[in-house]
Amino acid sequence: MGETVIEKIIRNNVGHAVKPGDIVTVNVDRVMIHDIFIPFVAEKFEEMGFQKLWDPDKVVLIYDHLVPASQLDDTRHFHTGDAFAEKYGMKNVHRSDGICHQLMTEAGYVKPGNIVFGTDSHTTTYGCVGAFSSGIGYTEMASILGTGNMWIKVPETIKVVIDGELPENVMSKDVILRLIGDLGADGATYRALEFTGSAVKNMSVASRMTIANMAIEAGSKCALFTPDEKTAEYCETELNDFQKSLVGDEDATYLKTVTYRAEDLVPVMACPSQVDKIRDVSTLEGTEIDQVFIGSCTNGRLEDLAAAAEVLKGKKVADYVKLIVTPASRKIYRQAIELGILDTLAEAGAMITHPGCGLCCGRAGGILTDGERVVATNNRNFLGRMGTSKVEIYLASPKTAAACAVAGKIVSPK
Amino acid sequence: MGETVIEKIIRNNVGHAVKPGDIVTVNVDRVMIHDIFIPFVAEKFEEMGFQKLWDPDKVVLIYDHLVPASQLDDTRHFHTGDAFAEKYGMKNVHRSDGICHQLMTEAGYVKPGNIVFGTDSHTTTYGCVGAFSSGIGYTEMASILGTGNMWIKVPETIKVVIDGELPENVMSKDVILRLIGDLGADGATYRALEFTGSAVKNMSVASRMTIANMAIEAGSKCALFTPDEKTAEYCETELNDFQKSLVGDEDATYLKTVTYRAEDLVPVMACPSQVDKIRDVSTLEGTEIDQVFIGSCTNGRLEDLAAAAEVLKGKKVADYVKLIVTPASRKIYRQAIELGILDTLAEAGAMITHPGCGLCCGRAGGILTDGERVVATNNRNFLGRMGTSKVEIYLASPKTAAACAVAGKIVSPK
Repeated sequence: MGETVIEKIIRNNVGHAVKPGDIVTVNVDRVMIHDIFIPFVAEKFEEMGFQKLWDPDKVVLIYDHLVPASQLDDTRHFHTGDAFAEKYGMKNVHRSDGICHQLMTEAGYVKPGNIVFGTDSHTTTYGCVGAFSSGIGYTEMASILGTGNMWIKVPETIKVVIDGELPENVMSKDVILRLIGDLGADGATYRALEFTGSAVKNMSVASRMTIANMAIEAGSKCALFTPDEKTAEYCETELNDFQKSLVGDEDATYLKTVTYRAEDLVPVMACPSQVDKIRDVSTLEGTEIDQVFIGSCTNGRLEDLAAAAEVLKGKKVADYVKLIVTPASRKIYRQAIELGILDTLAEAGAMITHPGCGLCCGRAGGILTDGERVVATNNRNFLGRMGTSKVEIYLASPKTAAACAVAGKIVSPK
Repeated sequence: MGETVIEKIIRNNVGHAVKPGDIVTVNVDRVMIHDIFIPFVAEKFEEMGFQKLWDPDKVVLIYDHLVPASQLDDTRHFHTGDAFAEKYGMKNVHRSDGICHQLMTEAGYVKPGNIVFGTDSHTTTYGCVGAFSSGIGYTEMASILGTGNMWIKVPETIKVVIDGELPENVMSKDVILRLIGDLGADGATYRALEFTGSAVKNMSVASRMTIANMAIEAGSKCALFTPDEKTAEYCETELNDFQKSLVGDEDATYLKTVTYRAEDLVPVMACPSQVDKIRDVSTLEGTEIDQVFIGSCTNGRLEDLAAAAEVLKGKKVADYVKLIVTPASRKIYRQAIELGILDTLAEAGAMITHPGCGLCCGRAGGILTDGERVVATNNRNFLGRMGTSKVEIYLASPKTAAACAVAGKIVSPK
């Protein structure tokens, strides 16, 4: 009997074959805690009576939601985090290097086939390199910190096949938005999404990351891409036999298969205020906007900034529109300087912030108010997420967002 | 009878000689309104019954305190400002180009000998190019918008002479801090400060700007530097005879003269929480810090960022310290990219923000909490200015601030 990718990863970890519905205990390869949750994790950890971390090297602490701090008392989280890291001998602490999900893969903390948990819903991101990764709460995190173990129910898998070549104005963001629209916001709840097909094989790891990042928006437990030579290069590793085996078997059992012809896909947006309310951009043209946001753990990578810069080069952001750009990490920020991308964006009128989660989670750097409309490349358009509850958020790709910034209204990317 | 610089500027404007204490009505050459006050100015203007602006081209509206917006409802100010500008035909609107005081001189709105008012206390800044500029409230601003006039009492002048050559680790920030310490925070209330001497002549316009910016911290109505060839180059103009004449006469009457030998000056800090509580940095060494801020309208210019980058090159910001850098304008931001300064700062661990006033006025991008200590290059260390009322703010030069960022505690710059 064949296996899906998630079944192979779990078998490798627990040492025996598994099937959907099985409850198993896995050895965790790595965990990520961010600044928002470290005070609660620390409190629970001590309340549970643990004396030490199961393995300090496997724990990564990242300050990203609150840097630079823009609300009173935000910095208390840093002091709690610093004290916890020092007390328990943690060395993997990133105090202002970028957004957690970017750093976990970029800094080499996650390898293909790993099992990783993080205190953030978008922890599904690391599926881009073929890892099983998922978000958990702070109580569960505290228990992993003490034991190194976590129970999971083996999820069923939905296979997503995308064959062909994406049109030039369609990015992987459009692919995942379309999928979420088709599945519904709860259409993959507790399922694994396994991506395959020639369009997926042709995608950069960065593009796959956008898809894996948003898999949670359809409710899925994790998203999985088969590790290949691009993955190996990105992870600066050679794939071992196990990692190479992480492809869904022909005779594996899938809950269902969803198939797209890449050529049929078009630029889309998730409209206010549901992530699965997907419309073709062409049907929304002319809608006036107040702000555009390009960045976040969903779309703040070099290829995203480069795509935006290509649209904005030699042009100006519309008079009344504010364009805010947030690279996903310090490394990307510096690469974007080197390649002239930041200068192009600044010349066009963008406000470029330090890498972080501020605007996406409504804490800093572009907060909106009643009646305002924003086109944004991040992953959620929930009510109240980027300001008051009367802000309208349209989720889009970086190419679409950049085109809208120039036009001052919703337009299709060229 | 000789004249001081301020007396010459006012005579030129009103057409007759003046002496301190005279009440005169001047024709205003330019005004600046920023985003914080535009709603109040607009309301007062209409309440006063004015139908049109006295001269839309002489009015400059700058969004700087609230961009990018980090508190709920900040963006309402933009909508009010945009509507006011459109209704009254204002073209000089800067929506995200930088900090007001930087833009007013950088973008050529202020020329030597001008009389300029702004809705910000640090409007004294434009004295750096030999303009009489001062901060006013929104009611006064509304009346200027309608009439183009403003009454003033001719101020007495305090002459500040700085001869010699500043030591390498001493910046113009150290000069103005020392002066404020010697005069006291109310030591120059409603007086003009007139700066002269060989050290002043050798200063760049940017260095003079730092001094003029902080003149208000001793209570002064304005600060004045004699326009020279550096001023002409900075303002991209040739000085006319009037502008060349803006030097204090030998036989002018000064309230008093304060003299410094540049070689005697040392790096200093304004200690919590009074701007005139000046101590030599050498006496404060070892004090632990949580954050360093380099930027603002006081010290966010290219020479300031370059000085910081020189200190930080090849070094790292101390582990637990957050370094936040805010260039004063988009133009400076881009110049700093081109010269490799931003990359050097980012490599060292700095968080670089979009040009704006956020952190300096405690609204965004580095807000601190009880018990934290910050070394900052901005102009005020008042209680509660950059976070809670239990934050300790030490004001310093960019060289000192950068050295502290590397050390993780207060140290003297090399």
